Amino acid sequence: MPSLIYNWLMNKLYHYLLCPHSRKCRLMLGEIKIEYAPHEIRPVWNYGGARDAEFLRLNPSGEVPVLVLANKGVVAGHYALTEWIIENDKAHICMPDNHIERAEVRRLVAWFDTKFMREVGVPITDEKINNRLMGKNAVPNMEIVRQGLANLGHHLSYLQYLLAQRDWLAGAHYTLADMAAAAPLSCLDYTGDVAWKSYPLVREWYARIKSRPSFRPLLADYIAGFRPTSHYADLDF
Amino acid sequence: MPSLIYNWLMNKLYHYLLCPHSRKCRLMLGEIKIEYAPHEIRPVWNYGGARDAEFLRLNPSGEVPVLVLANKGVVAGHYALTEWIIENDKAHICMPDNHIERAEVRRLVAWFDTKFMREVGVPITDEKINNRLMGKNAVPNMEIVRQGLANLGHHLSYLQYLLAQRDWLAGAHYTLADMAAAAPLSCLDYTGDVAWKSYPLVREWYARIKSRPSFRPLLADYIAGFRPTSHYADLDF
Repeated sequence: MPSLIYNWLMNKLYHYLLCPHSRKCRLMLGEIKIEYAPHEIRPVWNYGGARDAEFLRLNPSGEVPVLVLANKGVVAGHYALTEWIIENDKAHICMPDNHIERAEVRRLVAWFDTKFMREVGVPITDEKINNRLMGKNAVPNMEIVRQGLANLGHHLSYLQYLLAQRDWLAGAHYTLADMAAAAPLSCLDYTGDVAWKSYPLVREWYARIKSRPSFRPLLADYIAGFRPTSHYADLDF
Repeated sequence: MPSLIYNWLMNKLYHYLLCPHSRKCRLMLGEIKIEYAPHEIRPVWNYGGARDAEFLRLNPSGEVPVLVLANKGVVAGHYALTEWIIENDKAHICMPDNHIERAEVRRLVAWFDTKFMREVGVPITDEKINNRLMGKNAVPNMEIVRQGLANLGHHLSYLQYLLAQRDWLAGAHYTLADMAAAAPLSCLDYTGDVAWKSYPLVREWYARIKSRPSFRPLLADYIAGFRPTSHYADLDF
């Protein structure tokens, strides 16, 4: 089939490789086996914005991820996309059935989407990669990176604490909470900033997620000019 | 019935009066007629956090809103609570049935929950009220307030643009998108910062929402030491 026609018939996902929100949705789409043609957008503004007119018509906020369905419907932004995937998750892979257990999953998702992003993800990945891609500054501000790494330690301790009581972050089963946590951690692992050996339960949990088929596309990610750390794609790390 | 026993049997909502996320959830709970005993928390950190041990057990991130159900289940944070309310919205008041229309509602909810909050709500309300309640600084930084007001103009223009094409923000019906937009606007209206007369379609839309029974508790809000603007509770403004 000619690739142009093939593209018309496919869902299309606009995403940025080191956007944790995009990665969360890529993991979810992989888990529930919804296929899509990936379309990478480079960050212009606030993680993943791309202020070109075509993209702004799809999502006026300029943020990735955006899924354009083969039938032309648009699902813009990670909140809408996350919930759209849950609504289309017929096998209930992302979410438990009980309302209170679902609330616990979403409490943790918000933890990583906002608190972890603000305290850890943005300081480290913006300084090390995104600001340079955006042409903002060539040299990372290491004081900001150090503060982000200190915050990361607190968050890893919290994960270690949860995993001492639970098989998966939100309880007995693998859920969206695990994907939402693994997504930003995988961005920090790209730059080699996660001290896995100091948090053995977190390391063992991440190894389980990393070996899932849904994770494979993330392990193949490569940002030109920023080689991932040597163990990034290894299942033994 | 003695009030102590009555409280045991009631849902309890921890919220902060000028937290837009709390207000969004209060409007939703009002619309779907879920009753609760309100429990006000003052902001300590990042809108509505209260770092006391009892509250941190309910929500380790320290953020409001948190709904503690009469059966002891906890729904912590506005993301979990918003979706919990949608799941319990048997009459489909908050959300349309079509998946793509739901995605459009959530695109707009995210717009107000994060973009509007960051560009407008935090700069204005933190400087004018929250920082003073938190003992951070007694005098607002008017440069930050002015930037927030300039951003507010762009957002009001976007609302005016949407309302020129649609009866309600997300389409033909009143939805969660309208609640999520009215919530932060009502905080800014408390301090008299919304130039309603310059945006007649937005004003007419806000008047429709303001007259709904779900809005009444918000119009009764009062922060000691910070009197609301004279028209705050008026249906004619």
